[in-house]
Amino acid sequence: MGERIGIVGVGRMGSNIARRLKDCGFTIAAVNDVNVDAAKSLAHELGAPYYSELPQVTKHADVIITVVSDDKAMKHIFHDTGSLLARAKGRLFINCATVSPDTHVKIEHWAEQHEAMTLEACMASSITQARNGTLYLMCGGKLEAFNRAKPILDRLSITNRYIGSAGTAAQVKALVNMVMNINTAALAEGMGLAESLGINLSMLREVFSQTGASSRVLETDGEDMQNHEHSCHFSAEHAAKDCGIAVKLSEEIGLKLPLARTTQKQFERMKALDLGHLDKSGVAEMTFKHGKYHTLRQADDDKES
Amino acid sequence: MGERIGIVGVGRMGSNIARRLKDCGFTIAAVNDVNVDAAKSLAHELGAPYYSELPQVTKHADVIITVVSDDKAMKHIFHDTGSLLARAKGRLFINCATVSPDTHVKIEHWAEQHEAMTLEACMASSITQARNGTLYLMCGGKLEAFNRAKPILDRLSITNRYIGSAGTAAQVKALVNMVMNINTAALAEGMGLAESLGINLSMLREVFSQTGASSRVLETDGEDMQNHEHSCHFSAEHAAKDCGIAVKLSEEIGLKLPLARTTQKQFERMKALDLGHLDKSGVAEMTFKHGKYHTLRQADDDKES
Repeated sequence: MGERIGIVGVGRMGSNIARRLKDCGFTIAAVNDVNVDAAKSLAHELGAPYYSELPQVTKHADVIITVVSDDKAMKHIFHDTGSLLARAKGRLFINCATVSPDTHVKIEHWAEQHEAMTLEACMASSITQARNGTLYLMCGGKLEAFNRAKPILDRLSITNRYIGSAGTAAQVKALVNMVMNINTAALAEGMGLAESLGINLSMLREVFSQTGASSRVLETDGEDMQNHEHSCHFSAEHAAKDCGIAVKLSEEIGLKLPLARTTQKQFERMKALDLGHLDKSGVAEMTFKHGKYHTLRQADDDKES
Repeated sequence: MGERIGIVGVGRMGSNIARRLKDCGFTIAAVNDVNVDAAKSLAHELGAPYYSELPQVTKHADVIITVVSDDKAMKHIFHDTGSLLARAKGRLFINCATVSPDTHVKIEHWAEQHEAMTLEACMASSITQARNGTLYLMCGGKLEAFNRAKPILDRLSITNRYIGSAGTAAQVKALVNMVMNINTAALAEGMGLAESLGINLSMLREVFSQTGASSRVLETDGEDMQNHEHSCHFSAEHAAKDCGIAVKLSEEIGLKLPLARTTQKQFERMKALDLGHLDKSGVAEMTFKHGKYHTLRQADDDKES
């Protein structure tokens, strides 16, 4: 437990990773977030120091776990003046956010210029798994970085899989989330159409589960869709971002992904209706004829047509 | 085993249903198909009589199982002069084809005018299951018709589920196939993008199976996509038709199903490229950059853009 841990980004995932590592006996040596209150609150909870400046995090920790919101935030914490890379020699940065593969490649390059190491540790699971140390992790970067991170990541995960060089784990993660999000939007259309036809949705979910319509998202999101229960595990906004990463990857190599694009539009539409904070299961409200979100959507439908 | 069975439509599903029932000791009393050679060949194989005229089928059988290709064929065998409904009093028609819910409603109505009964028995499985009597069946129609059909259907299926009145089972079947087909097209985009990125597809399928991207179609179609192996279990043409049924249902009630429509377009595109005979897993060829179908698709891409 020799490595001192720093945490940058204390949202739902970052904070629970910190709690889990603390439980496992690691020293949380630095906490930081642009949301000062959230960072101070977690620091207080864990009895760990809060630092307002990124270089202070790097100074006081050996391994810094970053879980920030997007590409822009990632580039900010690693690139701008006063970033994590100030006096970073010998440090290991484990980057857990879902960002573009090429961002991971860039950040590895920048870190190497400062004689620091980076590893992308992409998470294909949610909050509960972060808290309980049962994440599914896909890692990309130098094998040396993976081996150094392993004792830490093993306490966070049930599967900790080395995929390949920087960017490759983020690519696989983008593919996982793309397929997951399309399957979610597909299920939503099935549930929405069934509701309008007066089909019993519990029966339908059971039939789906026993046939070619079965999927992991049926298990995770089906009942929530039926109950219009969209407390956030994985936000619609996040789903829109993820689809965007996959679509961008495909465009860069000249591939057309009509399903991914259509799904991205559905989640972007939720954002436009100010429903981006709902869980991705909320995409069913784009098809349901009843429920509290219908009136909102209907107005939008009318505007469109 | 008192009821004499007639079979109308001896394609992949119909012929295997007949074989299975024969194995179970039922009397196959009449075989018919617009493809005369196929009908005669099956009749010969089963030692059953072939009849060229539909009223002869009705005359010689008590329960007639129909497995024809589409709405038009269904309406033809039940409505036109010389149809199955000539002297059909007391007969039970079990209709297994995937057709529109309202077609089942119409046919029940017509049959009742002739004092005959109908039951839709929609199959959510494929050829092997038909041959082995392990189909997943969803039935719609009068409960009386279901109860009469039950001893026969039980020998064809592992699950034989009564859904409700005429048309309801076809609705549920349309929803199952819609979600299945979207999930298939989603998986295809994931596999296609991964291939272009140089990701190992066996590894990817394993990661998919352990994460939110997991689905039944990953199990049934994933390996075939990777191997460009598209011998037909469930044709792309059939997938296009099924998506069309769901999209039509949604339009009738004023719902937008963008994913279902996009998926329908992908399968229609396969038909336009003369690939409609491939298994639905062949939709991956719409995204794969390599393989024997790429050149064909590329020409089409170029034309479009």
